Amino acid sequence: MSHPVSPLAPAHLPILPAIPGVRLATAEAGIRYKGRTDVLLALLDPGTEVAGVFTRSRCPSAPVEWCRERLPGGQARALVVNSGNANAFTGLKGREAVALTAGIAAEAAACRPEEVFLASTGVIGEPLDARKFAGVLDRCAAGATPDAWPDAARAIMTTDTCPKLATRRVRIGDVEVTLNGIAKGAGMIAPDMATMLAFVFTDAAVAAPALGAMLARGTETSFNCVTVDGDTSTSDTLLLFATGRAGNVRVERADDPAAEPFRRALDELLVELAQLVARDGEGARKFVTVEIEGAESDRSAHRIAMSVANSPLVKTAIAGEDANWGRVVMAVGKAGEPADRDRLAIWFGDVRVAAEGARDPGYDEAAATAAMKKDEIRLKVDLGIGPGRARVWTCDLTKAYVEINGDYRS
Amino acid sequence: MSHPVSPLAPAHLPILPAIPGVRLATAEAGIRYKGRTDVLLALLDPGTEVAGVFTRSRCPSAPVEWCRERLPGGQARALVVNSGNANAFTGLKGREAVALTAGIAAEAAACRPEEVFLASTGVIGEPLDARKFAGVLDRCAAGATPDAWPDAARAIMTTDTCPKLATRRVRIGDVEVTLNGIAKGAGMIAPDMATMLAFVFTDAAVAAPALGAMLARGTETSFNCVTVDGDTSTSDTLLLFATGRAGNVRVERADDPAAEPFRRALDELLVELAQLVARDGEGARKFVTVEIEGAESDRSAHRIAMSVANSPLVKTAIAGEDANWGRVVMAVGKAGEPADRDRLAIWFGDVRVAAEGARDPGYDEAAATAAMKKDEIRLKVDLGIGPGRARVWTCDLTKAYVEINGDYRS
Repeated sequence: MSHPVSPLAPAHLPILPAIPGVRLATAEAGIRYKGRTDVLLALLDPGTEVAGVFTRSRCPSAPVEWCRERLPGGQARALVVNSGNANAFTGLKGREAVALTAGIAAEAAACRPEEVFLASTGVIGEPLDARKFAGVLDRCAAGATPDAWPDAARAIMTTDTCPKLATRRVRIGDVEVTLNGIAKGAGMIAPDMATMLAFVFTDAAVAAPALGAMLARGTETSFNCVTVDGDTSTSDTLLLFATGRAGNVRVERADDPAAEPFRRALDELLVELAQLVARDGEGARKFVTVEIEGAESDRSAHRIAMSVANSPLVKTAIAGEDANWGRVVMAVGKAGEPADRDRLAIWFGDVRVAAEGARDPGYDEAAATAAMKKDEIRLKVDLGIGPGRARVWTCDLTKAYVEINGDYRS
Repeated sequence: MSHPVSPLAPAHLPILPAIPGVRLATAEAGIRYKGRTDVLLALLDPGTEVAGVFTRSRCPSAPVEWCRERLPGGQARALVVNSGNANAFTGLKGREAVALTAGIAAEAAACRPEEVFLASTGVIGEPLDARKFAGVLDRCAAGATPDAWPDAARAIMTTDTCPKLATRRVRIGDVEVTLNGIAKGAGMIAPDMATMLAFVFTDAAVAAPALGAMLARGTETSFNCVTVDGDTSTSDTLLLFATGRAGNVRVERADDPAAEPFRRALDELLVELAQLVARDGEGARKFVTVEIEGAESDRSAHRIAMSVANSPLVKTAIAGEDANWGRVVMAVGKAGEPADRDRLAIWFGDVRVAAEGARDPGYDEAAATAAMKKDEIRLKVDLGIGPGRARVWTCDLTKAYVEINGDYRS
């Protein structure tokens, strides 16, 4: 199954520079797809530190459990990602497949299995035949290069219509360091496909606990602010690897002032990757930014924003280019957070459609309709009761989403 | 806009008997629709007691606020329901429209405005011109009859494709009493339409506080167990009127043993009406019963059931007749409730597709596919960790849902 490239995809892929200490290779392991790459091996120099954030699902995949158990070690030498099979809901066989994959990768990378990190995306509930990685990962290791970023981003795709890459360059003290990231995700989980995965690599020297704190904070305002369908994958994985090869004074603490530019660059890069996921949402034709202001607190604002961004009725209205503020009121009301109906104001783009709990006296249907015709829609709500604010990103809900997720096996 | 009758609608409408103390009339008030009735007046004999349950939305409609304020009085003499305009998010004008409608109805019914109950469904955010009820409600009152139940159920429809009625007859002590109910609802709220409303009438003599307790309990296992799209209306209203004309010994307490058959009949009737709403869900082609067993508690089971029933990916899979248990695992996992992946078992119809956290060893694709082809799908999950159970009803998510809610104004 393949779908045309999202109309919201960037016109050009960014060019990612090499990162000292990182080499990449991809291959066709034949897990599920034919005629395309489906496995990525990243080799990491000795001394690479690692942090991760994972799905909150109570039914996580076997690779997620593997990574969680290995993280406290803080050291990584290899990353293996396969597409086509998520190795989720596969019971004991899933754990065996993970151990076998890590063993094969450890031999290829000349490291210990505990230093191998894994992620899988694709079919749920089907055993993953990890024996297919034998030989394949050896050849990958032999041919790994520092510049295979576009290939890496492609090998991890499932229902994605385009590869997702981002890069930043920044200084820690006097030393220039680089951050590269790749991601995939189109539905949070899909037919027999999809999930959200992201991997960030840097040559900065940062201690694993500091990396972990920075990544957790950055996730709050990036990947935790994006939704396509509100469905949380069993396999969501975000990993950050720091090779330390740039030679900066090692950052020991997340709040080290010298690391501020690095933290900011990391935050930006995570936001860029998260937005790319919403832009490539299954069936998406509109990229939507939901901004909430005037809520009781930031936390309350975030909940209201997610209630709006996950509402099927708001998302179908946007697909229909209908400035339907009644549905926005509904979604604010159902969030269960403090709100005063008679203080609400709502904007589509720059057009205020509602104020003081009723239609804006100066409401202009033509202006509102023009705002809805754009590819990128900003939907703002001011609750008028406090200082809380939040911003999340989503896409519209189209017939193509139902087609991709409903008609696939029929 | 009109859509073909849901394939899940009952083949025949039930015939509702007269209820002593209740007379009904409908009319065309011209609120929004042309060539169809859009207002219902129910006249209730003196002494009628009333209870109600309303939306949990923090942005409720003006009629919901009116009813909430009048409920403590416990007395009702008239109900006015209009379709076409929800009188929600209409600010001060909304409150004025409600007061004006109650005044007009009170004159027509020769009662006090405080004894008039109101519900509105339709467009959100447009002022309701209540002056249109003048004259109309007078004529309704003059022509009200005890047998206009099908007309009543039709007058309150919006995107509904069929009227929804149910009836029960039961004894309190030696006295036979009747319960009649009508409902509407297709999306929880829709383009410029829809919401969930239900009205139940009985000739039993039951004190308002007892009615309230019975209704609250009955709602938990009926209307709170049904979802079409997870979007909560600003206007959801369920009212129960008891005229007392049957002449039974007045029920003073909800736990009166003599009222047990009545309570059971009420519960059944509410479930029947709630199921009718899911069967007429916008675009629905499949009626889905989600059963959760083996959860930590009933409350936990209910949350998991709603997570499954609201998942776009589960609902699109059902639309595609795909026995996609991986998505069920996802939806169980994202509920955030206690679960042990490796104890999960999942059934579609009678076919166990997964057991002990993996595909069922005896999985038969043909049998699973056959189960998915049916109009009515039972989806069962056993979590295997406790005694908690719950059952909720929903429908599939089809392209027609997106069409109804997205293409309407374009």
